[in-house]
Amino acid sequence: MAKPVVISLDAMGGDVGPSVVVGGVRDYYRRHGGRGVRFLLHGDEAAIRDEMNRFNVSDADVDIRHTDKVVAMDEKPAQAMRRGKGSSLWNAIEAVKSGEAAAVVSAGNTGALMAISKLILRMSAPGLERPAIVASWPTMKGGITAVLDVGANVESDAGQLVEFAIMGEAFVSAVHGVVSPTVGLLNVGSEDMKGHDEVRQAAALLRNSALGLNYYGFVEGDDITKGTVDVIVTDGFTGNIALKTAEGVARFIMQLMRDALTSGPLARTGAMLAMGGLKEMKSKVDPNAINGGPLLGLNGIVVKSHGGADAKGFGAAIRIAAELGRSDYLEKVGRQLDQLTDVLEAPPVTADAGAVEA
Amino acid sequence: MAKPVVISLDAMGGDVGPSVVVGGVRDYYRRHGGRGVRFLLHGDEAAIRDEMNRFNVSDADVDIRHTDKVVAMDEKPAQAMRRGKGSSLWNAIEAVKSGEAAAVVSAGNTGALMAISKLILRMSAPGLERPAIVASWPTMKGGITAVLDVGANVESDAGQLVEFAIMGEAFVSAVHGVVSPTVGLLNVGSEDMKGHDEVRQAAALLRNSALGLNYYGFVEGDDITKGTVDVIVTDGFTGNIALKTAEGVARFIMQLMRDALTSGPLARTGAMLAMGGLKEMKSKVDPNAINGGPLLGLNGIVVKSHGGADAKGFGAAIRIAAELGRSDYLEKVGRQLDQLTDVLEAPPVTADAGAVEA
Repeated sequence: MAKPVVISLDAMGGDVGPSVVVGGVRDYYRRHGGRGVRFLLHGDEAAIRDEMNRFNVSDADVDIRHTDKVVAMDEKPAQAMRRGKGSSLWNAIEAVKSGEAAAVVSAGNTGALMAISKLILRMSAPGLERPAIVASWPTMKGGITAVLDVGANVESDAGQLVEFAIMGEAFVSAVHGVVSPTVGLLNVGSEDMKGHDEVRQAAALLRNSALGLNYYGFVEGDDITKGTVDVIVTDGFTGNIALKTAEGVARFIMQLMRDALTSGPLARTGAMLAMGGLKEMKSKVDPNAINGGPLLGLNGIVVKSHGGADAKGFGAAIRIAAELGRSDYLEKVGRQLDQLTDVLEAPPVTADAGAVEA
Repeated sequence: MAKPVVISLDAMGGDVGPSVVVGGVRDYYRRHGGRGVRFLLHGDEAAIRDEMNRFNVSDADVDIRHTDKVVAMDEKPAQAMRRGKGSSLWNAIEAVKSGEAAAVVSAGNTGALMAISKLILRMSAPGLERPAIVASWPTMKGGITAVLDVGANVESDAGQLVEFAIMGEAFVSAVHGVVSPTVGLLNVGSEDMKGHDEVRQAAALLRNSALGLNYYGFVEGDDITKGTVDVIVTDGFTGNIALKTAEGVARFIMQLMRDALTSGPLARTGAMLAMGGLKEMKSKVDPNAINGGPLLGLNGIVVKSHGGADAKGFGAAIRIAAELGRSDYLEKVGRQLDQLTDVLEAPPVTADAGAVEA
């Protein structure tokens, strides 16, 4: 049997801490039991042990690395970088750097996770200042669309957008098993002349066959939920706003639905009769089911779990880390980023030069 | 009694044409009958007359201006500008330029409406290349949030963002009767240092009390549906993507709900019992109820009705045109844009200068 993949967990991160993290380990084993994964749990040993007993998680699957130190959820990234050494967050990332673990998952402070990951692991994508965050959206086709960047890089030039495309494509292929995923560029229309310079230049680069991407073309905001393509690339400003707008709209409509179905005794009886279907609907838009946003562009695999996720949600984030950890994701992205460097450095073929040759 | 406001209508625009436009006139009178509004209808006289008979709209309220010529829904803006003279769209806008009408409504080709409006009326906001489009979103508080620009200006510097703020504020105050509307700037976080240069510079300008705006600060994507502020300002690229993303999410969830409520005989019975509440819910997210997107920044009032809107939707767009037409919207915006020019041209107060004075 193949050597197990080791996943490093920040056991103290998130709004709740060890109970969600250890509960997530149990949930992961229950759903994906057969496949060999072991865990390193960083944090308070006594608290972790209590939860292991409660959730019936075996010592055979888990190594505990004790530390008293914790990065607070509201600590500023700069402060966390200065004072975070030896914390559960820091040590969990260090285990990836040292090669002990193939990936790390934390539900802790996003800014601190990003800053310390960058400090310890360093960026692998030359154009990025900060890791890109991927969001996985459920679609009307029943699958998911991966959207990146959703928050880290507020200004992105054409080269960075292509880096997102490379990383997003490799992510979808490694985690969701999609063969040759299609990649779209988010824009305000589908015609070639639409949008600002950065997206039009990125489109020209993405069409370059040397990158080996299955480029679809421009897509619009409603293509995210339509599931038109597997990967949607955008700058971190637009991506973050699209994601939060979508969350707001979803919350609003679910609220309207709750109001409608509790508006009187008849409606309440109706809702009870329709309960089965409504529960299934809720599971399709359950944020816990699609939890786990990898920070891409680092020399190592780091997955952010939502601070408010439950054990099932943390288990979903573990799955993403495990799939990335056992795949050739990092090597594949490395090769494609080298290709991109060649493409960006190649002398441009101008229309004039072509005319002279012809 | 005050002189009636005259609204100019492109009777041939939209996916359906005269029946929706004349139906919209009837719908407007039915809802807002008492207030004095007259109409100029531009298009095929026979077709308009048929619909007036069908909808029982009186000659006393409508002047018909016959033309055979129509701008097609798929005509390119440049082509429409060259060949559109004398069309129902062109003539409807001309009536605003000549002063015959206080505002124009068209459900026709958006690109052509924008290009011909700009050609005939000219821009009043010096920083804008094209009119800004406002979208009115229903919110969880029960009111609306006006979001602009949602599509026309893909790159917006700080001065343009402030122009959007001025126009959006005057729009909400004229059409929705909000006293001293609050204005927020769409960003990826609420802290001062968040976002790119343009939004941070715009924030500094908006805080300037000489503009007389009720500036709230940065808001995020989910504040749109929360109703945190009355007006949300963003560049046309981000605004368009946020709007289309929201439409996609709303469609997806409504589809899931339909599936859930028709998933079996029990669910169908339940849905029938809850019908009253569900209908009320549907009316709250009905795009026809919030139809009518003004093109702001022109020397004249132009309102775009959605091409697929029904008579009720066209009536809602007429209401927006009528409210803007009878208000001091244009004068107010003109005064505030003059203030903005003064603010932008004032010598910057640098920290150094301050230090020397102190």
